[in-house]
Amino acid sequence: MTTDARRAQTTRGLPEGAPRRGRGPRGEYAKSEGTRRAILDAALDVFAESGFRAGSIREVATRVEMSEAGLLHHFRSKTALLQAVLDHREEQSRAILNFDAPDGLETLHGLVTLTVHNASTPGVVELYCTLSAEAISPDHPAHEYFARRYSQGRDRLAQAFERIAAMGRLAHGVVPYRAAVATIALMDGLQLQWLLDPSSTDMAESLREFLARLVLDFGSSAEAED
Amino acid sequence: MTTDARRAQTTRGLPEGAPRRGRGPRGEYAKSEGTRRAILDAALDVFAESGFRAGSIREVATRVEMSEAGLLHHFRSKTALLQAVLDHREEQSRAILNFDAPDGLETLHGLVTLTVHNASTPGVVELYCTLSAEAISPDHPAHEYFARRYSQGRDRLAQAFERIAAMGRLAHGVVPYRAAVATIALMDGLQLQWLLDPSSTDMAESLREFLARLVLDFGSSAEAED
Repeated sequence: MTTDARRAQTTRGLPEGAPRRGRGPRGEYAKSEGTRRAILDAALDVFAESGFRAGSIREVATRVEMSEAGLLHHFRSKTALLQAVLDHREEQSRAILNFDAPDGLETLHGLVTLTVHNASTPGVVELYCTLSAEAISPDHPAHEYFARRYSQGRDRLAQAFERIAAMGRLAHGVVPYRAAVATIALMDGLQLQWLLDPSSTDMAESLREFLARLVLDFGSSAEAED
Repeated sequence: MTTDARRAQTTRGLPEGAPRRGRGPRGEYAKSEGTRRAILDAALDVFAESGFRAGSIREVATRVEMSEAGLLHHFRSKTALLQAVLDHREEQSRAILNFDAPDGLETLHGLVTLTVHNASTPGVVELYCTLSAEAISPDHPAHEYFARRYSQGRDRLAQAFERIAAMGRLAHGVVPYRAAVATIALMDGLQLQWLLDPSSTDMAESLREFLARLVLDFGSSAEAED
């Protein structure tokens, strides 16, 4: 069997009602992309419900009516699937976050909204928390992913703080880059305590309180979060 | 072979120069305690140097001139050894921390000093970070340990903030319990970023800056950290 034939076979796992695309190279690509997205949606659900240790590739495959081998054709390993899930989650987060909002405050309020959203998906938060800790080790397959992700997150958040500084709204002595590091650190640490004991902390409220010490009149524009 | 005979044999792994104690039950106990401490010191070194995945029980056993089986007589599994190492580290930390200092400020400065100390032992910090994330899962052998540890840490740190409040030194609007949650969260999150990229953050400086926003004139008593 040729590679193309194998690919065509494995993409048959799409739900019966999935739209049929053309048969040319573009149609194949679109179909394969559709399959990938269906797998990622299912994986996000499975990991969010069961955590990433208990959530199995088999369960994800079942939900998209595909064999395990078929799924592994799209994502070569559980780790690859996990990373793709995290990328997928990042895309969803970006819709909430608005890193490039012109006044920076919108980005910070987006972080609070994102935290409210996270509190409704403990499985995804656990996945993220456990995997990022595992990935500290330089030989972990997700190490580069997390190192890059944090580096980019710090830079983009620092830019938001810089725009707030330009508006004259930063509290005395706040340095944008260090504020970005601390904000991300607080969010990660709150997640750990919340996962260990959900009653220990209101993550969004704690983040809002923290940001209100860095940004003048931060609370007064809280309506932007809704 | 009786259990006692087996125990006597396994504790022979002590370094040659180790002091001989009496042969009565108290002497046996003291000898066994001495062996446990020697194992924990070695394990802390091994995990601090290699991380806890790469650090092996075999390597720890070698350092205390003991067989792997002999070591497993004192700590029944790698997980049990890890937990004991964390307890051991907690004892060391307590010497720096002074949770019961009468004015509370000493406790906060102790946290900064502890963070400076942590920055010199990345392996131990990685061990702690990875294990706490793994332990989120309720069926993980260290789950209860971490849930209890965080709960106690929050309560004791909240008490320190309460003592600072009684001195009239808390910034406007700071609630002791929530300040404790946020302080611990920040410390944990900083560790993650620092482990992924040591150049990304000065953990102690970031913590000091955070505390200076919660406590009036916090910096002015910074000499307490030396």
